[in-house]
Amino acid sequence: MSLLKNAWYCAATSAEVGEKPFARRILDLPILFARDSSGRVQAIGDMCPHRFAPLHKGVRQGNVIECPYHGLRFDLSSGACAHNPHGDGKIPDTARVPRYPVAERGDVVWIWPGDPELALSESVPELQLFASGSHGRVGGVLTMNVDYRLVLDNLLDLSHAPYLHAGTLSPPRAKRETRQAVEGVTVSVNTVMRGVEVPSSQALYFSSPRGDYYSDIEWTAPGTLRQRLAITEMGEDPEAGAVTRNAHLITPESDHSTHYFWFHSRNRLQDDAAVDERTRAILSHAFLAEDEPMIAACQAYQAGRDFFSLTSIFLPTDRASLRCRRIMEKLVADEHARGCSPHPAHGDSAVLEHPG
Amino acid sequence: MSLLKNAWYCAATSAEVGEKPFARRILDLPILFARDSSGRVQAIGDMCPHRFAPLHKGVRQGNVIECPYHGLRFDLSSGACAHNPHGDGKIPDTARVPRYPVAERGDVVWIWPGDPELALSESVPELQLFASGSHGRVGGVLTMNVDYRLVLDNLLDLSHAPYLHAGTLSPPRAKRETRQAVEGVTVSVNTVMRGVEVPSSQALYFSSPRGDYYSDIEWTAPGTLRQRLAITEMGEDPEAGAVTRNAHLITPESDHSTHYFWFHSRNRLQDDAAVDERTRAILSHAFLAEDEPMIAACQAYQAGRDFFSLTSIFLPTDRASLRCRRIMEKLVADEHARGCSPHPAHGDSAVLEHPG
Amino acid sequence: MSLLKNAWYCAATSAEVGEKPFARRILDLPILFARDSSGRVQAIGDMCPHRFAPLHKGVRQGNVIECPYHGLRFDLSSGACAHNPHGDGKIPDTARVPRYPVAERGDVVWIWPGDPELALSESVPELQLFASGSHGRVGGVLTMNVDYRLVLDNLLDLSHAPYLHAGTLSPPRAKRETRQAVEGVTVSVNTVMRGVEVPSSQALYFSSPRGDYYSDIEWTAPGTLRQRLAITEMGEDPEAGAVTRNAHLITPESDHSTHYFWFHSRNRLQDDAAVDERTRAILSHAFLAEDEPMIAACQAYQAGRDFFSLTSIFLPTDRASLRCRRIMEKLVADEHARGCSPHPAHGDSAVLEHPG
Repeated sequence: MSLLKNAWYCAATSAEVGEKPFARRILDLPILFARDSSGRVQAIGDMCPHRFAPLHKGVRQGNVIECPYHGLRFDLSSGACAHNPHGDGKIPDTARVPRYPVAERGDVVWIWPGDPELALSESVPELQLFASGSHGRVGGVLTMNVDYRLVLDNLLDLSHAPYLHAGTLSPPRAKRETRQAVEGVTVSVNTVMRGVEVPSSQALYFSSPRGDYYSDIEWTAPGTLRQRLAITEMGEDPEAGAVTRNAHLITPESDHSTHYFWFHSRNRLQDDAAVDERTRAILSHAFLAEDEPMIAACQAYQAGRDFFSLTSIFLPTDRASLRCRRIMEKLVADEHARGCSPHPAHGDSAVLEHPG
Repeated sequence: MSLLKNAWYCAATSAEVGEKPFARRILDLPILFARDSSGRVQAIGDMCPHRFAPLHKGVRQGNVIECPYHGLRFDLSSGACAHNPHGDGKIPDTARVPRYPVAERGDVVWIWPGDPELALSESVPELQLFASGSHGRVGGVLTMNVDYRLVLDNLLDLSHAPYLHAGTLSPPRAKRETRQAVEGVTVSVNTVMRGVEVPSSQALYFSSPRGDYYSDIEWTAPGTLRQRLAITEMGEDPEAGAVTRNAHLITPESDHSTHYFWFHSRNRLQDDAAVDERTRAILSHAFLAEDEPMIAACQAYQAGRDFFSLTSIFLPTDRASLRCRRIMEKLVADEHARGCSPHPAHGDSAVLEHPG
Repeated sequence: MSLLKNAWYCAATSAEVGEKPFARRILDLPILFARDSSGRVQAIGDMCPHRFAPLHKGVRQGNVIECPYHGLRFDLSSGACAHNPHGDGKIPDTARVPRYPVAERGDVVWIWPGDPELALSESVPELQLFASGSHGRVGGVLTMNVDYRLVLDNLLDLSHAPYLHAGTLSPPRAKRETRQAVEGVTVSVNTVMRGVEVPSSQALYFSSPRGDYYSDIEWTAPGTLRQRLAITEMGEDPEAGAVTRNAHLITPESDHSTHYFWFHSRNRLQDDAAVDERTRAILSHAFLAEDEPMIAACQAYQAGRDFFSLTSIFLPTDRASLRCRRIMEKLVADEHARGCSPHPAHGDSAVLEHPG
């Protein structure tokens, strides 16, 4: 498995994490999430180090969780065993689960699955969505049975949209002007299509039948992709148009499955719940019924073979996704070279990152 | 995987292939089939060489198929990329999928999954069925989750019939006279059972309750098995009887699953649609509900272990199937020794084989 | 796979084995069981050595079973081929399936999957249940998709009961006095809980709301675990209480799945069919809905990794299960060192063990 451990990944939306523990596998690690009594999100290993029981099925008592199998209790914030109900009640030093730095920003719970010492709160990504009230923002979570790199390929090359998303997200086939740029571990792709038919997703809040279409994508390793989409009257300044700010957060569940979190905010009709609902329906359909089956079919045909040994076509439209793959390869290789373990085997002290 | 690549295999029945592309996996290769505008069957790789999308889900436009993911178009007859809708539209030389020689003979579409240069139209098998009008001939296609060699074992040793097919295909247990012969890569088995009860499948067009039963089987490597079955009045000349000419075409889908195409023609009641229907029902039942579960159970118990290391009983009735296994072993070994690749990685020029 | 072959394992309950053959996989060996014409249970390999067909699907004729594929017949008591219906009818010397020593004791059919020469009838385990009439004894069979060692861990450390079996088998959390002992390949665990609330399973035949609870467990390698459970009036002599004698017989189906046979007998209300029924319901629920999902979840998190490399907590309550693991490791290592094969490849002569 060649996944990058030392990075912030989206672990959950804020709404997903409450007092009741829930578990999610991230980078193949089973992780328990719960809010402590002060409302802070905490993340610890979900596998009891005694007999490997899933802790999230246990009883929550204050800031400890009791293992459902033999009743050992673990502290939500440190991962340390806080109580042994058996015999003399002694607690071995090794009785602890890993704890993972987490940070809650806006609607997102971020996690650092690598070495806690390396986690820096300054590096937690910002989504840059539009502020909104009770409406004007929608989102969703899905888990795709595909390699996360195929998901990034998909997002970084939107030339697929007129083929796969005709009638939903994309204007019909038309001339695209595209610029790509790389800076550090960030790749951006800016696309303009002029005088195109407005797609269903944007027609919800933009009434002209045609317009100029702008897509500005910025991916930062490993899994943060922001997209600014604008539709304007033809020739109009892009800032004056109907703009959406989106985020697609890509978190490997394992080396062959991926959590996909999406966030969508708009600058028009922000109070209109019907637009929310319709947006959610169109985007969910596009991701679940258009993207996922296609990416899964590609992965099936790839059949575990190396991407670069298998592909024989490199087009200019592939540049961004290829840069992304090369950046990820280098980051993973660097991490291995530093001898970074995914996390201290049974976690010792580390800086914990909380929402401020 | 030890499958023979350089040979003609049944890919489909003629009726299965139309204008709309369809895909079938053969020797673990994903292959797209479609008729071109002149009605000829064409076969090309189904995996787009760009990002591995399944081409058969794309849009057909004249003699090209458009990839459903990014819109590259491939020529149905050559496999070459014919159109790149992106950027300057340049087409890399490597932008092609393999093309496979195909030949349509009678009701069968044959494919040569190996080196196209080695495909010879003269070697396309003939089924030797009875000519027929709208009735008198039936057939079917099934995919069995078993190694193709276990299917050939089954067909080349019909001593199983009184046990597995009692009441459907086979006369009850009775003395069998059997002759077996080998010539090159062809194995034949001729069986006579005299004065036996006529089985259901033959009672459809032969009214005496007992008769002499003749089965003449001829297998030619790798997957063509013809069977002439006759039932005659006792002592009568076999040519005077009720005769069926059958073909069983065995094509590995992978090293553990097999496409099975069967064809059945008769010299009696050729115009009787009810006999067609009843024959189809009996034969489908025998192959699907009697043979397949038994072969699958045997494969499960074999559990991936080598056949010859596992079996400890060789009977005279096994001679034909053992010869068949030895012939296939030698053909595969010879092919490996010649360093034959399954097909040129992204196919260059080759003789294409069409129906005359 | 590191399973101990040379030992008696529970293969079936007496009621499961009749004239009609049935098959069960034990230590990854497919085995056919049937009673011969004298009522004795016989066990032979279920895989035909000719073409690997499942013999138990064949026709039973007296003391032979006819292979459903090609009609070879095998003797139920020796495993030898008794009839070849083909050609000259000669039977190769190698035409035989393994035969396995079996012993029927009480309600249990035991099997010795290892070298038949080493099987000793004296070593067949005794269950030591209470004698009973038509009622007073219940039991069941289930197959768990878990490593047998995780099942033994579960049984040898009942400190899990107040957590996993609260409301069914176990008194609520309370102080436990526990003694553990090892003698040869036997490990025993004796537990007392004084003045506890009587659990549902025991309240069926013990009317006081509280009592003293005694559990005496004795495991003998590889898979025989006897448990004496008593509930008494507080301070009363344990022999005077409501006592159940239980057996849990653990037989690996494979290295990741386990047959679990349980037997329960009581000294109170032995004639009460309603108590039988209710006991069966409570115990089935506890094993199927409480134990099995938990053990399966633990095995999923263990994910094939070595137990001792993964666990980091050893509590006094683990001593018995750790001794059990160490004993099994030693027995398997000794067996390998002696070069013991699981069974003679196609079985030659051996002492067969029958009920007296």
